Amino acid sequence: MVNLSAQDIRCLNRFEVLRRFYAAPHARTRQDLAAKTGLSFATVANLTAELIDTGVLVETGRDGSGGGRPRSLLALNADRGTLVGVDVAETSVRTELFDLALGELAVDERPLVSAAVTPEHVVELIGAGVDAVLHSTGTPRDHVLGAGISVPGLVERERGVSTYSPYWAWQDVPMRDMLAERLSLPVHLDNPLKASTLAEMWFGAGREVDDLVVVTLRSGVGAGFALGGTLYRGSTNSAGEWGHTCLVFGGRTCRCGNLGCVEAYVGVPGIVETLRAISPGDPLLSVRNQEERLLGGLAARAADQDPVAMEVIRQTAAYLGAAVGNLVNLFNPQALILANQVADHLGERLLAETRAALADHTLAQPLRAVTLRLSSLPHDAVSRGAAAFALEGFLKDRDLFGSVSRARGARARAKAGTADEE
Amino acid sequence: MVNLSAQDIRCLNRFEVLRRFYAAPHARTRQDLAAKTGLSFATVANLTAELIDTGVLVETGRDGSGGGRPRSLLALNADRGTLVGVDVAETSVRTELFDLALGELAVDERPLVSAAVTPEHVVELIGAGVDAVLHSTGTPRDHVLGAGISVPGLVERERGVSTYSPYWAWQDVPMRDMLAERLSLPVHLDNPLKASTLAEMWFGAGREVDDLVVVTLRSGVGAGFALGGTLYRGSTNSAGEWGHTCLVFGGRTCRCGNLGCVEAYVGVPGIVETLRAISPGDPLLSVRNQEERLLGGLAARAADQDPVAMEVIRQTAAYLGAAVGNLVNLFNPQALILANQVADHLGERLLAETRAALADHTLAQPLRAVTLRLSSLPHDAVSRGAAAFALEGFLKDRDLFGSVSRARGARARAKAGTADEE
Repeated sequence: MVNLSAQDIRCLNRFEVLRRFYAAPHARTRQDLAAKTGLSFATVANLTAELIDTGVLVETGRDGSGGGRPRSLLALNADRGTLVGVDVAETSVRTELFDLALGELAVDERPLVSAAVTPEHVVELIGAGVDAVLHSTGTPRDHVLGAGISVPGLVERERGVSTYSPYWAWQDVPMRDMLAERLSLPVHLDNPLKASTLAEMWFGAGREVDDLVVVTLRSGVGAGFALGGTLYRGSTNSAGEWGHTCLVFGGRTCRCGNLGCVEAYVGVPGIVETLRAISPGDPLLSVRNQEERLLGGLAARAADQDPVAMEVIRQTAAYLGAAVGNLVNLFNPQALILANQVADHLGERLLAETRAALADHTLAQPLRAVTLRLSSLPHDAVSRGAAAFALEGFLKDRDLFGSVSRARGARARAKAGTADEE
Repeated sequence: MVNLSAQDIRCLNRFEVLRRFYAAPHARTRQDLAAKTGLSFATVANLTAELIDTGVLVETGRDGSGGGRPRSLLALNADRGTLVGVDVAETSVRTELFDLALGELAVDERPLVSAAVTPEHVVELIGAGVDAVLHSTGTPRDHVLGAGISVPGLVERERGVSTYSPYWAWQDVPMRDMLAERLSLPVHLDNPLKASTLAEMWFGAGREVDDLVVVTLRSGVGAGFALGGTLYRGSTNSAGEWGHTCLVFGGRTCRCGNLGCVEAYVGVPGIVETLRAISPGDPLLSVRNQEERLLGGLAARAADQDPVAMEVIRQTAAYLGAAVGNLVNLFNPQALILANQVADHLGERLLAETRAALADHTLAQPLRAVTLRLSSLPHDAVSRGAAAFALEGFLKDRDLFGSVSRARGARARAKAGTADEE
C-alpha cells in the first residue's frame, strides 16, 4: 500500500532540491543544497547533474568564499521554457505566463458572466487568454512546458474531469481533453484549493516547514494540507472540504444544504450574514457579488473604528478561531496560513482576533507547535499555483528525466544507492 | 523536507510485505506477495531474503499448484521471539504476551485505583505484569523482542516522555527510560489512539486500504490517521485530537475546559449527559466510573425497545454523524472505522443511525468514497496495537537489518536498485 517507487522518491527529491531555488533566488552550491535539503552530497550531485542535463539548472560561476577549492554555483535557467497558470474564478478568468523561475511575463484577465457559463465558453476564454499572453510576449507555443488550470469545485485530477462546479450547472466535464485540444499544450487540471496550497508549498511558507495547513478564505472556503512535504489529496482528490465541516450543530443553512458549516460563517456570504444580523440596514448589504468591494469597505470602516465593522470582524474571528482550532487539534501542523481575499482585506485585525479565539479551542501542545499567519503571497496566487501544477508535471516527465538517468548508466545509480544508505 | 531515505523506503516495504502475512495466516509465495503489494518481484525477493536471514520468515514447503516449477512457500516464524503489549487505561493495566505471529500467549490485568496513581506505581504494575506473563509461559527475557506501552494522554514518542495525562496529575514523565530500567527490554512508548490505529493498520481494515481513519470511542475520544499506508502523527505527535474539535459552537463544557467539543457529546461522559437531559432520574445515572456496565445497560435496554435508551443512541448518533462527517469531508478516506467500547456495546444500532446522520453532513463525493464500519478487532485491541509498536521497532532495527544487507553485499543492492526503476 506504500506506493512509492525509487522513481517516485527521486522525483520528490528533485522537487526538494528545486524548491531551494524558489525559496531564495540566488545561485547555490551543491554543498549548500545538501545542507538545506538534508540529502546526501552524492544524491544532490546526481539530481543536479540530471537537472543540468535537462537544462533546468545552469552553472553560473564559482564560489571561492569558503576557502579551499572554489565550488560551482548553480541557478535556475529561467529561459528553459515558460509555464501557463490559469485561475477560473466565479466572475473572471485570469491567465498568466511565467518563465521557469516563476517570473511573471504577462497577464490576461477576462470577465465571466455567470449566467451564461458553459464549459465550451470557459475553454474558449482560456484559449483566448493563452493566445493573448503568448502573442504579447512573442513566445512560440513549443516553448511552453505546460499549462496548469484551476477550476472551482471538485476535480478528478487523474482523468482530468471537472466533476462538480459550485457556480455553474455542469457535471463531469472532460475539461483537460477539451483544453488540450484547444491549447495544443500539456494540460494539468485541479482546483483553487490545490493551487493555493501548491503555491504556498513552492513559493510561500512551505519552503520552511514540513507540515502545513493552508486555509483559503473567499466566497467558498477550504483547507489544503501539505503533510510531510507532499500535498495530501485523499482517496478521490476531495480532501480539504473544511468549509463544509460542521461548526455550529443545527446552525445556519449552508449553500451545500447542510446546517452549521464553517463556510456559512467565515466565507464571504457568511460574513454578510453576520453583518446583516448586527446591522440590518447596513449600506454594505447592497453590495452584491463584489467580494473585493464588500471586504474593502468593511476593512476601511474597521480602520476608522466603526463599531459595526469591528464587531463583524470580531464575530467572524470567533468562528474562524474555533474552525481553525479544529485543524490545529486534528493535524498538529507547524504552520497554519490564512490565504485569499478575506485574509488579504481583513488582514492583521482578523489575524489578531483569530489568534485570541484560537486559544479557546485548541489543546496546549498543538497550540504551542503551530504558527498562525497570513499568507505572504498575493491573493491572485491561484494562477501562480496553477502554474506549479505545470511545473510539477514537467518535472515528473519520465521521457525527459527517465531517459537522462538511463543514459547516465548504472555507475551513478550505484553511487547514489550506496551513499543514501549510510 | 521529504525525509525518506532509501533506508526508510526499504523499511516501509518490509512492513508492507509482512502485513500480508498478518492479513491472512497462511503461507505465501513470493509471486503472491509481489501481486498483493504491487512491489516488483526483485524487490520482494530481496526483502524476503533479508526476512529469512533474520529469522522472521521461514520456508515451509513448495507450492506446485500453479503448474511449472514449484514455488517456495514462506510463513511467519512465530517462534522467532515474543512481543509485549501493555495498555495503561484509566482503571487498569493490561499486559499481554504475543508470539511474532501475534498469537496471544498470556494476559495479565491489574486494577489501577486512580486516586493513588504515580508514575512509579504504574511502572511497578507494568513490571509485575510483564514478570507474570513471562513466568507463566516460561519465556526467558532475552526471547522478548520488545515491549510496546500505551499510556493515556500526550506522548513525546522520540524522547519517550509522557507529557500530559488526562487522569493523573503528572507531566513530562520520562516513562520510557523508567520502564526500560525496570523491564530490561527495548521499550516503545505511545498513546492508545496510536495503538488503536496501528492495530487497525496491521491486523484490521488497514490491511485492505491506504487511507483510513480510526475513530476511538471510550471515555475520551480521538481519531487516528493512516494516510497512504503510514501513521500520520503531526509535527509533535499530537495529531488526532478530534475529541477536542468544536462541533457545537458555544455548547457543553468539555473536561478540557473548552465549549462544544466532540468528546462532550460522544465520549462516555457525554452520553451520560445526554441520558440525564432525556431522563433526569434514570437508574443508569447512578453507575459511576464503570463504562462497561453503563454502556452494556444502555445497549440491553435499547435491544428491548426502551424508548429512553433508543433516544440516547439516536441523539448520540446525530452528533457522531456530524463529527465523523467532518473527518470524511477533511480527509476523504476510503474507510472510517468506529472502535473501542462505545462502538463495541452500541454496535450495529449506533452504526446504522450514524450512517443516516452522516449523509446530512457530508458532500456527495467523499461520502461515495468512504465505507463506515465497526472495527473487527476486540476493544482490548490497544494492548495488541501496543505490541505492534514493539514489532515495528524490531523491524526498524538498523543493527539487525542493516548488518544483514551489508553482509549481502553490493550485488543485491544494485539488483534491487535497477529492478525498482523499471
